[in-house]
Amino acid sequence: MSRCVIQVINPNTSLAMTETIGEAARRVASAGTEILAVCPSQGVPSIEGHFDEAVATLGVLEQVRLGREQGVSGHVIACFGDPGLLAARELASAPVVGIAEAAMHLATLVATRFSIVTTLPRTLIIARHLLQRYGFEHHCAALHAIDLPVLALEDGQGLAQHKVREMCIQAKRLDGSGAIVLGCGGMADLAQALTQELGIPVIDGVGAAVKMVESLVGLGLSTSKHGDLDYPLDKPLTGACAPLR
Amino acid sequence: MSRCVIQVINPNTSLAMTETIGEAARRVASAGTEILAVCPSQGVPSIEGHFDEAVATLGVLEQVRLGREQGVSGHVIACFGDPGLLAARELASAPVVGIAEAAMHLATLVATRFSIVTTLPRTLIIARHLLQRYGFEHHCAALHAIDLPVLALEDGQGLAQHKVREMCIQAKRLDGSGAIVLGCGGMADLAQALTQELGIPVIDGVGAAVKMVESLVGLGLSTSKHGDLDYPLDKPLTGACAPLR
Amino acid sequence: MSRCVIQVINPNTSLAMTETIGEAARRVASAGTEILAVCPSQGVPSIEGHFDEAVATLGVLEQVRLGREQGVSGHVIACFGDPGLLAARELASAPVVGIAEAAMHLATLVATRFSIVTTLPRTLIIARHLLQRYGFEHHCAALHAIDLPVLALEDGQGLAQHKVREMCIQAKRLDGSGAIVLGCGGMADLAQALTQELGIPVIDGVGAAVKMVESLVGLGLSTSKHGDLDYPLDKPLTGACAPLR
Amino acid sequence: MSRCVIQVINPNTSLAMTETIGEAARRVASAGTEILAVCPSQGVPSIEGHFDEAVATLGVLEQVRLGREQGVSGHVIACFGDPGLLAARELASAPVVGIAEAAMHLATLVATRFSIVTTLPRTLIIARHLLQRYGFEHHCAALHAIDLPVLALEDGQGLAQHKVREMCIQAKRLDGSGAIVLGCGGMADLAQALTQELGIPVIDGVGAAVKMVESLVGLGLSTSKHGDLDYPLDKPLTGACAPLR
Amino acid sequence: MSRCVIQVINPNTSLAMTETIGEAARRVASAGTEILAVCPSQGVPSIEGHFDEAVATLGVLEQVRLGREQGVSGHVIACFGDPGLLAARELASAPVVGIAEAAMHLATLVATRFSIVTTLPRTLIIARHLLQRYGFEHHCAALHAIDLPVLALEDGQGLAQHKVREMCIQAKRLDGSGAIVLGCGGMADLAQALTQELGIPVIDGVGAAVKMVESLVGLGLSTSKHGDLDYPLDKPLTGACAPLR
Amino acid sequence: MSRCVIQVINPNTSLAMTETIGEAARRVASAGTEILAVCPSQGVPSIEGHFDEAVATLGVLEQVRLGREQGVSGHVIACFGDPGLLAARELASAPVVGIAEAAMHLATLVATRFSIVTTLPRTLIIARHLLQRYGFEHHCAALHAIDLPVLALEDGQGLAQHKVREMCIQAKRLDGSGAIVLGCGGMADLAQALTQELGIPVIDGVGAAVKMVESLVGLGLSTSKHGDLDYPLDKPLTGACAPLR
Repeated sequence: MSRCVIQVINPNTSLAMTETIGEAARRVASAGTEILAVCPSQGVPSIEGHFDEAVATLGVLEQVRLGREQGVSGHVIACFGDPGLLAARELASAPVVGIAEAAMHLATLVATRFSIVTTLPRTLIIARHLLQRYGFEHHCAALHAIDLPVLALEDGQGLAQHKVREMCIQAKRLDGSGAIVLGCGGMADLAQALTQELGIPVIDGVGAAVKMVESLVGLGLSTSKHGDLDYPLDKPLTGACAPLR
Repeated sequence: MSRCVIQVINPNTSLAMTETIGEAARRVASAGTEILAVCPSQGVPSIEGHFDEAVATLGVLEQVRLGREQGVSGHVIACFGDPGLLAARELASAPVVGIAEAAMHLATLVATRFSIVTTLPRTLIIARHLLQRYGFEHHCAALHAIDLPVLALEDGQGLAQHKVREMCIQAKRLDGSGAIVLGCGGMADLAQALTQELGIPVIDGVGAAVKMVESLVGLGLSTSKHGDLDYPLDKPLTGACAPLR
Repeated sequence: MSRCVIQVINPNTSLAMTETIGEAARRVASAGTEILAVCPSQGVPSIEGHFDEAVATLGVLEQVRLGREQGVSGHVIACFGDPGLLAARELASAPVVGIAEAAMHLATLVATRFSIVTTLPRTLIIARHLLQRYGFEHHCAALHAIDLPVLALEDGQGLAQHKVREMCIQAKRLDGSGAIVLGCGGMADLAQALTQELGIPVIDGVGAAVKMVESLVGLGLSTSKHGDLDYPLDKPLTGACAPLR
Repeated sequence: MSRCVIQVINPNTSLAMTETIGEAARRVASAGTEILAVCPSQGVPSIEGHFDEAVATLGVLEQVRLGREQGVSGHVIACFGDPGLLAARELASAPVVGIAEAAMHLATLVATRFSIVTTLPRTLIIARHLLQRYGFEHHCAALHAIDLPVLALEDGQGLAQHKVREMCIQAKRLDGSGAIVLGCGGMADLAQALTQELGIPVIDGVGAAVKMVESLVGLGLSTSKHGDLDYPLDKPLTGACAPLR
Repeated sequence: MSRCVIQVINPNTSLAMTETIGEAARRVASAGTEILAVCPSQGVPSIEGHFDEAVATLGVLEQVRLGREQGVSGHVIACFGDPGLLAARELASAPVVGIAEAAMHLATLVATRFSIVTTLPRTLIIARHLLQRYGFEHHCAALHAIDLPVLALEDGQGLAQHKVREMCIQAKRLDGSGAIVLGCGGMADLAQALTQELGIPVIDGVGAAVKMVESLVGLGLSTSKHGDLDYPLDKPLTGACAPLR
Repeated sequence: MSRCVIQVINPNTSLAMTETIGEAARRVASAGTEILAVCPSQGVPSIEGHFDEAVATLGVLEQVRLGREQGVSGHVIACFGDPGLLAARELASAPVVGIAEAAMHLATLVATRFSIVTTLPRTLIIARHLLQRYGFEHHCAALHAIDLPVLALEDGQGLAQHKVREMCIQAKRLDGSGAIVLGCGGMADLAQALTQELGIPVIDGVGAAVKMVESLVGLGLSTSKHGDLDYPLDKPLTGACAPLR
């Protein structure tokens, strides 16, 4: 594989989380892979619902367009709801992978069923819808929420991290799952230690998505431009969205 | 039912289509219902893919916020992909109904299976995903695309209308369906005549959604604010999205 | 919408319940709608299983035939199992809506997932089968039975009503649902107060079905007579069923 | 297995078809099995839709009650829609098996996928619903209708039989199925010859159901009376249905 | 039915369990049926996972080939995972039925939903996969494991039998199921007594499968040799597998 | 990522195909990855059905055990039916990936729906079952068979390759799919050229699986040994299978 540049897009505007995500991506990237960790200049500081996702999607698309101009090899959407995934695939010429799908795909390769641990209960419906869309409803044994907001993962107090760990331990004991999927980009730095401590695969989507993009690039595969993921039809965009094309 | 004001949001910026949609809405609205047909001031002139939907969603949310400030009784999202539906439900206090879901729901009340006739083939995947999300996969016998863009419905030449009619006739003959769902807000004015001519229910989502909103309002039911459709969490939005809250 | 006459059929022979249902229907009917609340002259006093449903279906069909002769605008089948729904659609020329389907449809418009509260545990299987048939399995988070018979709702003691309320409160707290569907026509009068008290949509199918029929009538849509819901083939019926055609 | 008496209920009132069905049942019954082929004294002469099914269900239940009084070992409902199946299970103390379910179950034991050949197109929806209810959607490759009414199978002209044969041959060639399920009790006498001629299992539900009942009886298994198939609750039935209990 | 010889294959090498299974088969076999209870000469002493299944499958195929040479009328695979079922169907000319499928099929004929009670928790995934493959996911209310290995059923101490009984009682009380499926061939001798004691159908797959084979034989139906269950293509097998053809 | 050794197991005994597969694996392997392409010493020369799969599974497990002894970093099962996948995961300590699952997973990342092109029609059922097991039924638009045996891909005449190409072109034109999955390990060398020529992703599972293993290794993830994929329970294997543990 020649040089591979992966744009890892944190869809929210939190610089701390962008750094967490970027570091998690770099930690697992192959030798020949460069990670560009970015976030939108404007938008929403954290994503905890459909409204937040809709707002963040614009930032994702803005970054995908920028990344395409820069000639990146692939894009990662680093929010567990995979916001804007199909729109980004239309816009991109390179592969685009969401961290939720990446984590779920890999989880099915190492366990017959997995559990999901995420942040606020209101985001569970997003994960449920993704499980249905991606086809993994039968592979998910249970979903859990620690009932703390996304940014609690970045407040330096460690309570959110503590609760994630507790929930993973409980999920291992009670769900009959062989693996756990961490349901937030901000948990990316926890996966390795939890995998060690719990003795089961605890999967972070950021790393998983980086590896999926590397895989597609290495195979010479990119988003199909035949059919419904073809580039957006050429139309005059107006207003705040105008620069998107 | 006291006075009911329904905001019918055309998610694209086509004024002609907004008018078509508004007229279709008014034609079926109850005596006590006022229709406010609006479209975003900025965005995309037609919606034919996921990128277009993502862009249009911002306009939908902007209009929902405006409608909420105006105290409307309910909102209709008048594009067959129901763009931004769950985000709009978070933002709104009144009911929000998409035209795809409305048409599909009503179709299952008058036929055991229905066919969908839409515009470009690339939009079929959006309809497929909605069928899965809403639970109507088993109720849809077939999906058809006339292979003309959305705005061909507004070009005054009638070719698109002709093709819709041909496709409906063919669907009636071949699909084993008892009803047809028109898969574009811009086809709203065709439903009644086709229902007459074909002798089967040909369902336009705009009218269907107006009736669903009237129904919810009449029953005193509104979007649940308990759980995952609660108002978006209060956070500082920045940039083009800042006015959304 | 011109004058609309909706025949609301209580499939059991309980006059008290027919009155409860009729009042619930009138409370939400539009100004131009007249409600004809009827029940079969003969049959079963309450419906709590498949056998009861089979017996009641004859009464439903008898009433549908009568309603058709009277030229009603639409029919509601006011028992949560929607007994005889497809047979009634064959027999009717006007729209026919069941209260279970109506409540479930509307529940999906105001919440991402709903709970059902019904009477005896043995009726749960009927609700489960309807969820599967209608496509709403993924939208139903949980089903609950108060373990009292249907007619306890009409005994004037209020115990059943008390248990329904308790169960709804518990369902709101534990199921992660945004709305509750009341699983019996005899609960029709409880929906509004519970919606107020609990602060979430508590949906009664009688009102919901009246609104669905009004919607279909207002849109000029009726049961498709093309295909499998066409009028029953003309054959000599004999015995008790002879008057049905 | 001691003496086993199986009541084979033809739900329609056609004596000719009752005889066809009875003969088919006797042809495959074990040595110790006695076949009582019956049909309702009143009802509908053939079953080609939901209305016909609803009417016929009463006759089925009447016969089940009679059979129970006679102490039969089991009941077969010999119409491909399995009309009244769950109601009959409530009423019966012995096992009750429908010919559609029996044929579908056995088909999955001899082929990975099967095709269905039935009479009128309007009955296809009934078969589709049964496939969904029983869990065999993925096992059915295709459904076909010969477009002749049920009673054409009894008119002595052989056209219907000819069309069934043609359709089976075509299904074998085109559907990728390993077996064919005959979708009407009136086709019961065709299965053996077609199995021979086509060289694939062509399955008649009447014989299949007789064998299922023999199997359950031989295993000492009967309809569960714990839970939702318990005997109907004791209530005063009135009118034509009064003798049902 | 002329003389019927059913080869009941215990896929593991435990002679004690082969005897238990053979006795259970003989107890329910019809007068004209002879039971040949066999097990592979080599393989694995009990089957508690996918690896064990893979190993045991060879023994199953070896026995099927032997049975075919002996001209048996049908084969039963008497391990609840139905190991090698489709491969055995390719190899056999007579019908082949697995005990898991047989028990599940019959359970759906006597109850609307059933529970499964099996041995070790690690085998639950096998049952889950079979439920999905066979189409019975909606018919299974719950799965339970007694957390004892298969051979505890043959150790003469009765602890496993005690735990099975306890689990069945609990399942009856809590699952809302009308029937219980015993999830291990080694439990075959418990079904009748538990059915008596609990008053609900407790179904052993060995007996069920014997009856299914008798049914198919009695109907003149055998594994379809048209399409994907045709005999294995003729190829040179080498090594330990060479004698398999 | 430190040195990574991937054992690519061709489950059949064809040395020519093992070479084709090994070369395809090496072509896409990362710089630090060593490919060990192996096949069983004994078994079946090609895999075209369930019987062949069952036989080949033993060879797969034998190789996995060898690979584990050699300390390989991961295993690929290079037959499109993923024979023995879960058994291999029990046996292995390193990750195990099948080429069917790998190709299907990646196909969903680059297209909304894909088509499968495989060899003999009788293998289609295996692909169908995998789609169901893995959750990708909704992502597969169509399955096609070229109707030539697996080894025609190795006969040097090119007819099979020609037919694969024709089928891919036809699938692109007719299926509405954005990508094609090649349904046989022996087609591994065709993917790149077809991707180029057709202008859509044509995905070979061998390369895909190598990348999936590299991904899992790079992330420090391996088969979960908690729960149902734990090592096989320690039991005395006898006969040809004895060396497997």
